[in-house]
Amino acid sequence: MLDFPLYRDCFSSPEMRAAWSEDATIECWLRVEQTLARHQAAHGLIPESVATALAGLSLADIDRHQLREDMMLVGRPIVGLVRQLRESLGDAQGHVHHHATTQDIMDTALALQMRDGLRQISTLLDGILAGIDAHINDHGMQQMIGRTNGQHAVPLNLATKLEVWKSELRRRAICIEQAGQRGLNVQIGGPVGDLQAYESGTGKAIKAGIAEDLGLHVVEPHWQNARDGIADIVGAIGTLCGTLCKIAQNVNLLSSSDIAEFAENPSPGKGASSAMGHKRNQRASEFAEAVARLGRQRAEQIGELALHQHERSGGTWIGEWVVVPETFLLASGALSWTEKLFQILSINKGAMERNLANAMQKVREQAH
Amino acid sequence: MLDFPLYRDCFSSPEMRAAWSEDATIECWLRVEQTLARHQAAHGLIPESVATALAGLSLADIDRHQLREDMMLVGRPIVGLVRQLRESLGDAQGHVHHHATTQDIMDTALALQMRDGLRQISTLLDGILAGIDAHINDHGMQQMIGRTNGQHAVPLNLATKLEVWKSELRRRAICIEQAGQRGLNVQIGGPVGDLQAYESGTGKAIKAGIAEDLGLHVVEPHWQNARDGIADIVGAIGTLCGTLCKIAQNVNLLSSSDIAEFAENPSPGKGASSAMGHKRNQRASEFAEAVARLGRQRAEQIGELALHQHERSGGTWIGEWVVVPETFLLASGALSWTEKLFQILSINKGAMERNLANAMQKVREQAH
Amino acid sequence: MLDFPLYRDCFSSPEMRAAWSEDATIECWLRVEQTLARHQAAHGLIPESVATALAGLSLADIDRHQLREDMMLVGRPIVGLVRQLRESLGDAQGHVHHHATTQDIMDTALALQMRDGLRQISTLLDGILAGIDAHINDHGMQQMIGRTNGQHAVPLNLATKLEVWKSELRRRAICIEQAGQRGLNVQIGGPVGDLQAYESGTGKAIKAGIAEDLGLHVVEPHWQNARDGIADIVGAIGTLCGTLCKIAQNVNLLSSSDIAEFAENPSPGKGASSAMGHKRNQRASEFAEAVARLGRQRAEQIGELALHQHERSGGTWIGEWVVVPETFLLASGALSWTEKLFQILSINKGAMERNLANAMQKVREQAH
Amino acid sequence: MLDFPLYRDCFSSPEMRAAWSEDATIECWLRVEQTLARHQAAHGLIPESVATALAGLSLADIDRHQLREDMMLVGRPIVGLVRQLRESLGDAQGHVHHHATTQDIMDTALALQMRDGLRQISTLLDGILAGIDAHINDHGMQQMIGRTNGQHAVPLNLATKLEVWKSELRRRAICIEQAGQRGLNVQIGGPVGDLQAYESGTGKAIKAGIAEDLGLHVVEPHWQNARDGIADIVGAIGTLCGTLCKIAQNVNLLSSSDIAEFAENPSPGKGASSAMGHKRNQRASEFAEAVARLGRQRAEQIGELALHQHERSGGTWIGEWVVVPETFLLASGALSWTEKLFQILSINKGAMERNLANAMQKVREQAH
Repeated sequence: MLDFPLYRDCFSSPEMRAAWSEDATIECWLRVEQTLARHQAAHGLIPESVATALAGLSLADIDRHQLREDMMLVGRPIVGLVRQLRESLGDAQGHVHHHATTQDIMDTALALQMRDGLRQISTLLDGILAGIDAHINDHGMQQMIGRTNGQHAVPLNLATKLEVWKSELRRRAICIEQAGQRGLNVQIGGPVGDLQAYESGTGKAIKAGIAEDLGLHVVEPHWQNARDGIADIVGAIGTLCGTLCKIAQNVNLLSSSDIAEFAENPSPGKGASSAMGHKRNQRASEFAEAVARLGRQRAEQIGELALHQHERSGGTWIGEWVVVPETFLLASGALSWTEKLFQILSINKGAMERNLANAMQKVREQAH
Repeated sequence: MLDFPLYRDCFSSPEMRAAWSEDATIECWLRVEQTLARHQAAHGLIPESVATALAGLSLADIDRHQLREDMMLVGRPIVGLVRQLRESLGDAQGHVHHHATTQDIMDTALALQMRDGLRQISTLLDGILAGIDAHINDHGMQQMIGRTNGQHAVPLNLATKLEVWKSELRRRAICIEQAGQRGLNVQIGGPVGDLQAYESGTGKAIKAGIAEDLGLHVVEPHWQNARDGIADIVGAIGTLCGTLCKIAQNVNLLSSSDIAEFAENPSPGKGASSAMGHKRNQRASEFAEAVARLGRQRAEQIGELALHQHERSGGTWIGEWVVVPETFLLASGALSWTEKLFQILSINKGAMERNLANAMQKVREQAH
Repeated sequence: MLDFPLYRDCFSSPEMRAAWSEDATIECWLRVEQTLARHQAAHGLIPESVATALAGLSLADIDRHQLREDMMLVGRPIVGLVRQLRESLGDAQGHVHHHATTQDIMDTALALQMRDGLRQISTLLDGILAGIDAHINDHGMQQMIGRTNGQHAVPLNLATKLEVWKSELRRRAICIEQAGQRGLNVQIGGPVGDLQAYESGTGKAIKAGIAEDLGLHVVEPHWQNARDGIADIVGAIGTLCGTLCKIAQNVNLLSSSDIAEFAENPSPGKGASSAMGHKRNQRASEFAEAVARLGRQRAEQIGELALHQHERSGGTWIGEWVVVPETFLLASGALSWTEKLFQILSINKGAMERNLANAMQKVREQAH
Repeated sequence: MLDFPLYRDCFSSPEMRAAWSEDATIECWLRVEQTLARHQAAHGLIPESVATALAGLSLADIDRHQLREDMMLVGRPIVGLVRQLRESLGDAQGHVHHHATTQDIMDTALALQMRDGLRQISTLLDGILAGIDAHINDHGMQQMIGRTNGQHAVPLNLATKLEVWKSELRRRAICIEQAGQRGLNVQIGGPVGDLQAYESGTGKAIKAGIAEDLGLHVVEPHWQNARDGIADIVGAIGTLCGTLCKIAQNVNLLSSSDIAEFAENPSPGKGASSAMGHKRNQRASEFAEAVARLGRQRAEQIGELALHQHERSGGTWIGEWVVVPETFLLASGALSWTEKLFQILSINKGAMERNLANAMQKVREQAH
């Protein structure tokens, strides 16, 4: 559904879709195989010539139809990919993918894609913070009536409301940063993750070298069946989405006809109703809320997927193939709508003052 | 992610993807507009000529690029669709989409798509039940050791295990059928759902006629902001997925090297490991478990989406656009894997008898 | 937490707590053992005298401290209970709990408790429907402005809004009724559920007799590791809670200071603020929303608990001990608040007319 | 349910129940009022004598029956508590709870309780890590067959499996520590959180002083309606529970009759079956799995509760009253079972060698 041309820009950004596309995914697998080969060659485990030749291959060299056939037969994409790479290079002895297992390639590639995704999230967050700042600068001192439990409470400055949003979003940025520190890890270990196929010490050195090369962290002994780092990252994105959902809904409520202190700037046809010509639907806040909720919900699915049996098990792992990309995609959609929201948001000071005056009048009446 | 050519057949069936494709979705919208027009014409509310001309339009007449542009501007797809339909017909007075609102079209179309999806689920379930029956017929009387809380318990017939699976799946079929009775409803009501724009009585008659025509049910006054019927359907599919997940995992455990009483029939290369030549991964049970879990989790998202504000609210409704199709898609994947699983499953009677004998031997030892 | 004297009436009704109390739970276990014995005696499997003597025992005969010690040692409560029952009766040969397993007793008792809980839910639902009816009768024809996507739409009658709530709640009642038909089942089967310990045919007859006696249904072969019926019941309650949450939030929004078309009748001190003397917090709608959401969320936990391994497994089953009662408890709280809400709700016709007039005025302005 | 004397030690530790008991909760509220008064007195906002007298009050001075009556009337517990405190002190002018709002007291008290709970979790984690270390020291070099996707893979050392568990648990400890840094915050702000009632600057100074006094952090402007810090803490506990669930299930699988490489040391009657005398149910791993899953699921409920409207809203906030304590309670249960599990776990080296030899034999056979 997320991929309908009709809808997809409502649910994710084009950049995030590019980062998690099939093309990008296969390119990351290829990059991991290439990096592995380079480091193994440097340690003399495979010929330099193989590593060099492998480095020259790109997505264009992959027969996608064959890759898909092999995927459906094998149930994993790497067996077919490796076969093609070996065939391309005339690598009869199997130097490509030496000492490696499917999950080494897919997990390390996933870490690369998550890192790219987190960078995009960080950039989008900066844009939102800048957008909020602009409103603080322009209208922060404007007073409005505070609302607690749905009832008029006491006045507050608009700036206070907006500063709370900023403080939340900054905490979310820190949380995501720390989750990345724990969860963006290289996976190089072989069938049961322990590098046992390597001669004494070379395995650890190669793993560390690949990590440094790719800008990833290392965990010992391995995380093949320890998916908590992914849960951290996905969970951090989910909590960010929870914050975005709340902010968007608050903007939407303040933009409702009954309050009307906020409004998205109208452009012709925007938010038109098929039934009611007079309506001005608030689309950015509405979509930001909806997509952020989907992102938070999607992220909540990750916890159950930690339940690997023994050294690893596809019956849970395969779930990540779907849940991790989708969480990033939905987050990008929620962030994009929120960024746009603050760009087109207008503050109705007149309504704020009118509502505040009415509220204060009622307080005085009730006091009598 | 579900749409990667590389993976998509692992997560959904081609038929279910067709039923929920962008093409099918737009065709359902068009069909609802056509049906509405026909019934309004029959009641003299719009000219017969408009209804007839509209009936002649098809997906091919829609400018998809324009539709997408309008979607992104308006935040809903129907305004743009209606504009194109009216322009195609020279319908300057707006007879197309008369007295209707966007949600009338999208909700009724959703009901049509869900009905098609439920039929597919029903067919797949029949196939699974037949597959289980074959094993009961062939090997039902075979004894095996029962396992409770992970420990060997007492013997049971294989048939008992398989009959339990059948009884669960039959209950799931009934549950889905009953959910459909409550949730497959026409939505014709206008802006706030109450048919107020219609002259006395015509609204109800037209709504009932459309329902009969489309094979849907009617609820009064409306369900525009009452999404419990959708929650019933999606929830019933989720519970089915929970059952499929359990069955698949049980097959997978019984196919593990340590038990080996079940096995998927090998074919060359199937379930190959990129690291270990000897391994025979059990792909059908593994994917059935993984995709069924995703389907169940996806279905669990629907409950929160019931929380419409006032007469309806996009901030929750939009979530359905994603969650409903995805639940059907994932269910189709889980069902397809399960159907395949029982087709390729082989029962290892020797292992059953060996394990049973060992278990009984241990019981005798512990009795001393 | 639910059991704080300070809070507990906010989260559950006293009647529902009684139905799921430790006392009631043990009494249900005892009742199942007694019923089993009576039917086994009638078929000549155990002495009538044992069944009769067992029928004379009650909760007062159970040493609760000992029961708890045994529970912590064994990890299940029935071994200790049976030991006490046998000791009380001098039943050295073990006629009590003959051919039974722990889960027979606990599952059948659970079905009894769920049935009682469903009856309570049904009664509470009737009260709510009556409460809504009273408002329809009194004020149904009052017009108010409809609100879609947060924006003023067109007018509707209050009755339409209230009738939608009634139609939802009635569908929820049907859904719960049908779930009970599938999920309220006797469990009598022995260690692996298949009645194998019984002489030819007696097992089935005894199982059917107990079911009839207790007013429960029968599934074949058994549902020991097929928990979908429980998922149906808990899921149906969860969807009901979703509906209650939506209704409560809508009342709360309509009771907000900015709309004020609804209000809970004030009583001195009710909803007082510790900081703001003028505030009139809307407690019934607020608590109904909060507790209904908790109930829906709790219910969503049940799906994952279907994942029994092999013939059954405590690692998932034990989760039901918590999730099932809590869902019933929270539902009772949400229903009780909602019933109260409609009792104390007052309709502010003046505000409805004022808001409607303002909305229509704005439509006219925008039309120019 | 968690409070059944029969069951409660299966689902939580006595210490954690004490930390979240009604008594402890009220004591924390009282402590926050006392601390607030002391700091306000130091700044001359209220008389020192009031602060001193308030410091002399304790839980014993609270009329619990009255507190409950007030709770049910007001819908919040603090109005009644403050009334009692003021009456006890003859504080007619309302110096107690000066400039404060209910949520100031409850949120700051919650932070105190969470901090205590996190300390308990940390201690329990240390115990588990020590328990695992003992097994590494004793049997780490023992070889066993690795299992991936349910199939025998290649051998690994037991130490590798155990080291992975340690690395996960250590990451969880760091995650929880960092979540505490973000989420253990004082809340002092008044009705809309912005300290507006205070003279210039005193509010911030008092807030900072209270934070230092209580060992909590400060966020600006406030977190009254920004619950992401709580989501961080609860989410981190949930991810820990996910890890515990996986470890426990792996131990349980390795303790199954079909593998039997692990076993919980038997004690007379432990894990007895009511139906089968020979069974040795593995209770610690089973309960650890079940309770950890409940803890993870409970934690997943927190994300939705972030959705406060405007300055704050009870309709979501009240959910935290239940979800936060329950998550801590269930985590304590899961941790306690896991700690016990490693204390009573015995490693069956003979079975490991036998299974390994069998696996290697099969590999050789398949190689031919």
